[in-house]
Amino acid sequence: MSSVRGRIEASFNAQALMATLGARLVHVEEGEVHILLPFADSLTQQHGYAHAGAITSVVDSACGYAALTKAPVDHEVVSVEFKVNFLRPALGRQFLAIGKVRTAGRLITVCTGEVHATSEEADSKVVAIMQATMMNVRRDT
Amino acid sequence: MSSVRGRIEASFNAQALMATLGARLVHVEEGEVHILLPFADSLTQQHGYAHAGAITSVVDSACGYAALTKAPVDHEVVSVEFKVNFLRPALGRQFLAIGKVRTAGRLITVCTGEVHATSEEADSKVVAIMQATMMNVRRDT
Amino acid sequence: MSSVRGRIEASFNAQALMATLGARLVHVEEGEVHILLPFADSLTQQHGYAHAGAITSVVDSACGYAALTKAPVDHEVVSVEFKVNFLRPALGRQFLAIGKVRTAGRLITVCTGEVHATSEEADSKVVAIMQATMMNVRRDT
Amino acid sequence: MSSVRGRIEASFNAQALMATLGARLVHVEEGEVHILLPFADSLTQQHGYAHAGAITSVVDSACGYAALTKAPVDHEVVSVEFKVNFLRPALGRQFLAIGKVRTAGRLITVCTGEVHATSEEADSKVVAIMQATMMNVRRDT
Repeated sequence: MSSVRGRIEASFNAQALMATLGARLVHVEEGEVHILLPFADSLTQQHGYAHAGAITSVVDSACGYAALTKAPVDHEVVSVEFKVNFLRPALGRQFLAIGKVRTAGRLITVCTGEVHATSEEADSKVVAIMQATMMNVRRDT
Repeated sequence: MSSVRGRIEASFNAQALMATLGARLVHVEEGEVHILLPFADSLTQQHGYAHAGAITSVVDSACGYAALTKAPVDHEVVSVEFKVNFLRPALGRQFLAIGKVRTAGRLITVCTGEVHATSEEADSKVVAIMQATMMNVRRDT
Repeated sequence: MSSVRGRIEASFNAQALMATLGARLVHVEEGEVHILLPFADSLTQQHGYAHAGAITSVVDSACGYAALTKAPVDHEVVSVEFKVNFLRPALGRQFLAIGKVRTAGRLITVCTGEVHATSEEADSKVVAIMQATMMNVRRDT
Repeated sequence: MSSVRGRIEASFNAQALMATLGARLVHVEEGEVHILLPFADSLTQQHGYAHAGAITSVVDSACGYAALTKAPVDHEVVSVEFKVNFLRPALGRQFLAIGKVRTAGRLITVCTGEVHATSEEADSKVVAIMQATMMNVRRDT
């Protein structure tokens, strides 16, 4: 698993958007990856909450890397499509995006994701859920 | 329509994520809004293309503002959910996100979106399509 | 809860499509509903498996009725939209569709669904997962 | 194209669910397929409209067959996933499901679909829109 963790860290560090948003890779295990996004003023929509696009970006990456833990070593993963429901306003000190593999095939991996908002005042709440289709592609093709 | 354009510009300018990504509001008409995202190194995924999350962020905002052109004046629009298909790698000099209203009800507005990539070498290509559900919410609730 | 179960049974029995497909309501609890669809030759796609549309029909109803267990008494539930991933061919003796409420708001309820295929030869397998948006509508409007 | 039409007719006739619902294949061209579903009492949900599942079944098949017009000759098409928005109650004498290819790759084809309801009293109305991911699979694998 350490080599998978290394591959995912290297790939995550190459995703400039994650640095732009301030997101950090915090957990990698077989079939599950967590990405943490601290709230920042640079991420808001017009009401001061985190923008749906910022929330979606981190849970897409979490699902993609969860899929990568199941992909053949000489393959990358790309997002074919995803769908996200926003369950409540993305209000909180930080957002934890959790991506999990539901089924991993030779070509297609289906993942589900959740984004949990945490704050000092209240228990963590799920602000978004994702259902995503990822595809393995051979590296350098 | 000028007051709608004004409302949308004000709201867009209050979406800090749009400035963080470098996106600009370029067109507003009844039922249709365009947002332009120039490619930047800060937006990439691990292969150097624009990250699916950046592409999704601008087309979500384009759909949301298209919905807002149809909403009652004392209402805002929030994203209930959306689904995006990524048709090819998001490669290009700039990305034009087009959001259009399909049906606008009292509470729910359904939009479709497209993101066109343009470059110097080739015709513009659609890199992503969205189908989104937006909801009108009374302001200050 | 007994009155909710009664309302759901009455509504299910009024859904002629469920009888056409041969589906049966088998479980109702707060926030969760199960519908069973025995395999039949009348439900197939071209390879002899259950058609994606038949699988979708029962899990849509399961999600809708799960949402109804959380709706105000004078309201009905309609499907705003849903998304389904098909994880493997729908092969089995019978299919159990499970709909669960993730969050129930005043107007919008978000549900997730699964369809489990069972056969004599193997353990049950999840053949489809759904993420659905349901809306409460006042009865007789 | 005549051989494609023949392949699609043969496959459609092998989809028993289409006969169970009363659906007919009415148009095939490169990248676009139409399926007609006359309203019937056997298709209803609890308010007497056509059930979302019946509407979804025909537009899924229309999208799948549209994808098949673009698939290599020795391949079949399966539904990876789809998402449907229901724009208004499915009320009408008949429903015309139109599936169109947006992009066809070697493995993955992305389609959009619409279902138009027609009645004697009013112009036809779009009652549902779909965004679907189809996959080419080699026959007999």
